[in-house]
Amino acid sequence: MPSDAHAANTTIGVIGLGIMGRPMALNLLAAGYPVVVHSRSRPPVEELVSAGAHEADSPRAVAERSDVIITMLPDSPDVEAVVLGPGGVIEGARAGALFIDMSTIAPATARAVHAAFAAAGVDAVDAPVSGGEPAAKSGELSIMVGGDEPAVARARPILEVLGARITHIGPPGTGQVAKAANQIVVALTLQAVAEALALAQEAGADPARVREALLGGYAGSKILEVHGQRMLEGSFTPGFRLELHRKDLGIALAAADEAGLPLGATIQAAELMDVLIAEGHGDADHSVLRRWYRAD
Amino acid sequence: MPSDAHAANTTIGVIGLGIMGRPMALNLLAAGYPVVVHSRSRPPVEELVSAGAHEADSPRAVAERSDVIITMLPDSPDVEAVVLGPGGVIEGARAGALFIDMSTIAPATARAVHAAFAAAGVDAVDAPVSGGEPAAKSGELSIMVGGDEPAVARARPILEVLGARITHIGPPGTGQVAKAANQIVVALTLQAVAEALALAQEAGADPARVREALLGGYAGSKILEVHGQRMLEGSFTPGFRLELHRKDLGIALAAADEAGLPLGATIQAAELMDVLIAEGHGDADHSVLRRWYRAD
Repeated sequence: MPSDAHAANTTIGVIGLGIMGRPMALNLLAAGYPVVVHSRSRPPVEELVSAGAHEADSPRAVAERSDVIITMLPDSPDVEAVVLGPGGVIEGARAGALFIDMSTIAPATARAVHAAFAAAGVDAVDAPVSGGEPAAKSGELSIMVGGDEPAVARARPILEVLGARITHIGPPGTGQVAKAANQIVVALTLQAVAEALALAQEAGADPARVREALLGGYAGSKILEVHGQRMLEGSFTPGFRLELHRKDLGIALAAADEAGLPLGATIQAAELMDVLIAEGHGDADHSVLRRWYRAD
Repeated sequence: MPSDAHAANTTIGVIGLGIMGRPMALNLLAAGYPVVVHSRSRPPVEELVSAGAHEADSPRAVAERSDVIITMLPDSPDVEAVVLGPGGVIEGARAGALFIDMSTIAPATARAVHAAFAAAGVDAVDAPVSGGEPAAKSGELSIMVGGDEPAVARARPILEVLGARITHIGPPGTGQVAKAANQIVVALTLQAVAEALALAQEAGADPARVREALLGGYAGSKILEVHGQRMLEGSFTPGFRLELHRKDLGIALAAADEAGLPLGATIQAAELMDVLIAEGHGDADHSVLRRWYRAD
């Protein structure tokens, strides 16, 4: 937790006030930080301004007024545009500022952004999160951090406002590698649970009892517990949208390709998601993978 | 737990004294049951006899002397031979006896065995286990039970000697369906963790920190905890032999086929196991799946 003096004297810019960025900015305000915001969509900007934040009209203007700049954006191209594009963060950031990208993007993009800031005398860390909207609201995100130790140390009091579990993974870009690894495990465990519950159903066993029997043993996982239950109920309200998970697997597969590593199961899961998205399930919770498995 | 009188008056035959059957038979003896054993291999028979068990020279002879007959055998053909073959259990079992098959076999075989016993007036349940040798020794197996309610009720006090978690899934064969579902989840979660840790490794992040960061969130599982650690250490001493897990996926895929259900991820995992077995890793712990993933 930050000291009151640290908070009052550290202006934080937040760019991107979507499902995740909006509650995160509110938590920073509540912790006593002056906050400057910018976002494409008006309603969350107005909400933040009512709550005490200032508005700036471009990423550059946010950076000019901030000691720390946080971005929470959908994908790699968004971060590249907002940071390195015309009117971008890098044009306004002062030497000595700190940049924290909390978006989920390609490790290669994170490293490029880090290098650009390093050349401008700005510390930068990649700090993608897991836990989704509920954890963003409660300030209990898991945060995977890549960056040099001094930059990570500067970011830590701020990250502790937003998250309950902060892990410094390693050098710049490795926070994104950890997030990619996380999304692989979640996708393939969803598929594991979907195939197992489908078999139970079609082979005449009560899938609810099978889930129950499996929870206590080696088959036990957070996904079997939470998403297994959603699959049993056929309740696919997000949660985490399938389409975003597919985007994250694209990042993971690009990073794997770059490393010369073939990830057969992840490739297959991504293809299955593509079909489900084409069938109109992109906005459903990712546990909708269960829908794939039907007896013929 | 059985009452002392129940135990003393109920002779249990145990056929199959391998890694699992041997400690299970010892636990039944320790709980006060008279035990009659039969196994292909001499040393465990001699050990059980020293511990107070009686020996019988065929499955039929075991059944003639027992109120309850337990089998713990490698695969479906073994159970078929021991139960239905010449000198098999069904020739010796008395009307009113109880048969408990704790092997992991095909649900279809389990249903056929149940039907054969039903015709002979013998109750039968399928009760495959998970937890491996340590849980067999400590009497803390997870046991998934298929069978009619009265038969399951008869089996329960005996199963409680052997296991810590007994779940009645449904009608005959559904214990095996649950076990197949369990083996699917374990195989695919192993693959999930293997792909994630391989990506971390090859993309320059410390896989130990990545595992640590992932444990608390939606990616968390028993497999990430236990087998993820084995993968980090490159320590593939069984544990559970890859070759046996492959056999179990064969059972799962046959049951899925029978139900007209295509399980793409399980098929792919089985193929990957086939290659690793051909490369000589069949006797390694199933976490050896991590070996598959190397950058080129």
